[in-house]
Amino acid sequence: MTGPRYTRLVASLPATVPFVGPETQERARGARFDARLGANENVFGPSPRASAAMQAAADGVWQYGDPENFDLKAALAAHHHVPAENIIVGEGIDALLGYLCRMLVEPGDRVVTSAGAYPTFNFHVAGFGGDLTAVPYKGDFEDPLALIKAANEIAPKLIYIANPDNPMGTCHPAATIQAMIDAVPKGSLLVLDEAYLEFAAPDTAPPLDVTNAQVIRFRTFSKAYGMAGARVGYGIGAAGLIDGFNKIRNHFGMNRISQAGALAALADGEYLKQTIANVAAARDRIAAIAADNGLTVVPSSTNFVAIDCGRDGEFAKRVLDGLIAEGVFARMPFVAPQNRCIRLTAGRPEDLAKFAEALPLALARAAG
Amino acid sequence: MTGPRYTRLVASLPATVPFVGPETQERARGARFDARLGANENVFGPSPRASAAMQAAADGVWQYGDPENFDLKAALAAHHHVPAENIIVGEGIDALLGYLCRMLVEPGDRVVTSAGAYPTFNFHVAGFGGDLTAVPYKGDFEDPLALIKAANEIAPKLIYIANPDNPMGTCHPAATIQAMIDAVPKGSLLVLDEAYLEFAAPDTAPPLDVTNAQVIRFRTFSKAYGMAGARVGYGIGAAGLIDGFNKIRNHFGMNRISQAGALAALADGEYLKQTIANVAAARDRIAAIAADNGLTVVPSSTNFVAIDCGRDGEFAKRVLDGLIAEGVFARMPFVAPQNRCIRLTAGRPEDLAKFAEALPLALARAAG
Repeated sequence: MTGPRYTRLVASLPATVPFVGPETQERARGARFDARLGANENVFGPSPRASAAMQAAADGVWQYGDPENFDLKAALAAHHHVPAENIIVGEGIDALLGYLCRMLVEPGDRVVTSAGAYPTFNFHVAGFGGDLTAVPYKGDFEDPLALIKAANEIAPKLIYIANPDNPMGTCHPAATIQAMIDAVPKGSLLVLDEAYLEFAAPDTAPPLDVTNAQVIRFRTFSKAYGMAGARVGYGIGAAGLIDGFNKIRNHFGMNRISQAGALAALADGEYLKQTIANVAAARDRIAAIAADNGLTVVPSSTNFVAIDCGRDGEFAKRVLDGLIAEGVFARMPFVAPQNRCIRLTAGRPEDLAKFAEALPLALARAAG
Repeated sequence: MTGPRYTRLVASLPATVPFVGPETQERARGARFDARLGANENVFGPSPRASAAMQAAADGVWQYGDPENFDLKAALAAHHHVPAENIIVGEGIDALLGYLCRMLVEPGDRVVTSAGAYPTFNFHVAGFGGDLTAVPYKGDFEDPLALIKAANEIAPKLIYIANPDNPMGTCHPAATIQAMIDAVPKGSLLVLDEAYLEFAAPDTAPPLDVTNAQVIRFRTFSKAYGMAGARVGYGIGAAGLIDGFNKIRNHFGMNRISQAGALAALADGEYLKQTIANVAAARDRIAAIAADNGLTVVPSSTNFVAIDCGRDGEFAKRVLDGLIAEGVFARMPFVAPQNRCIRLTAGRPEDLAKFAEALPLALARAAG
């Protein structure tokens, strides 16, 4: 009896996971975390109107969600002043990145990103056999000029940049990103991941231009809208590219409760403002806790803060392990020299109080 | 400016959808349906315990779901008496079928199914470039012997069968399916889609044997558990195959609210029994309505009933259009001679009262 015959590509791939979830770590340590500050989740939670809409939708979950996401796309179109045909809604940006890679990347195709940028994008590129080139960060910023230079050299199908960036939280102004968009070489598509955009200054995003077939912008309800577990992301791009998703996507993949929640969340601009203010205050508090411990932070345009532990990656890893041992879930960048930092999500006052307790203990243990 | 360069395969695919959703039809006709009986949804809804669990999970949706689906897999493992390592949980059977095709099918690879069987499986096979062979139904049954005969001839990577079947609602006894499993040729994997199993007689499913690397069984919370819009399906198979999903799946793709709902639904066996009884009564009522109109039904082991309209596919299509015009959402098989039927979901008494009103009008219009 012979088992299934995998594709050559899939046979060559490792079974992996881009991130180990906090629940996995909790099971390993035999205790819950006291503060969940590692996954850039929005601990301030969804709008009460979104919560209520999701609760109201529970009894009706016997129905499949609308595969066209018509109502949500219409609301997003009005919100962003673009036609609905330029919007694709999917099961989080992660799923949309997977679909996009499937649409464009076949074995051996070149792709450009930054060393240490979003690992789930890399997972999807590898999953379709793409050949990934990673350029270094410049300072703690992704480097648009270096990305474009690499693109001019290797003619990639995709160029990935997150603005604001994850894991460092830095961002470029709109003009810099617009210059990058204008410089995308023929035959390349710029993937502009704006998952954290709502937390950044108003001049961070260049204007949406859905006539440009060389850029797709990704947004999400997972971050500023506090709905990571609902899996609602969307892309904005040229109509032809957007329609391409219909060739391969899981048409009935959207959760009906999430559709209702996202629609209600989008309508609650007041709550969004309050969340952004809460996050800004939490970033300041994290900076203050860092300063209390003799550390500095990287200025953040997101809902997380990279704290510079002042030494190398091994030291930062020991600090991180110390925090985890103290019940604070955090993460850190993967690549030097950014891995001198640990990364903390903007938490509620009680989360950050726990962090303030844990950090000196973790630092002492790491130094000792 | 040149747009994105698609893969050769994706460039060759049409933008399509396996099914047009009822909301799309409602927008086209400018009115809601009075009875939603076309998508094999379980109109009796989720367990109140599942609803309550989903409502309780709404505020916590700021957290990503556990990418390991640990608790749900543990509960399913206990429920089915198999190890958790033999279970893969995903965003509905649709998503799992997509992952499975990606794992095994590359352009030109052969796949066998039945002509008129589940279109979403065909969509995924085409989406990865597979070469699909479809054998005819025998009577109104999928034909295991013909599927195995074709498999012996063309050595497909995948063989698909649904038991019970969709769209006809028929099923084979466990012994027939076990004989099919035993006859799967070397190098082929049998995809045994048991989405509707809970509605069938107790002797419909052969025992689970997770040592057999040549079969994967799919189950879902979309049908008997009344949670189609929550997107929770699972596969049961050999550990190596199950682990293969980790190479490519969207690890953080599961909705956190759905994870909570599925766990609660699985624990409410009493409600499941009640649903199954409600569905059985509704099937009888559909048969009675058909008989009142001089029509017969195909005996069903599912939550839907194929009504034989007694003439050809064109006539049945006219009957279907008449029902839709009267506000009853229904569907019909795609392939002759099964397309002599229309397919009605087991509805609540009020849904079926509406159907009983609409059917004679639709038949008169179709005949006239």
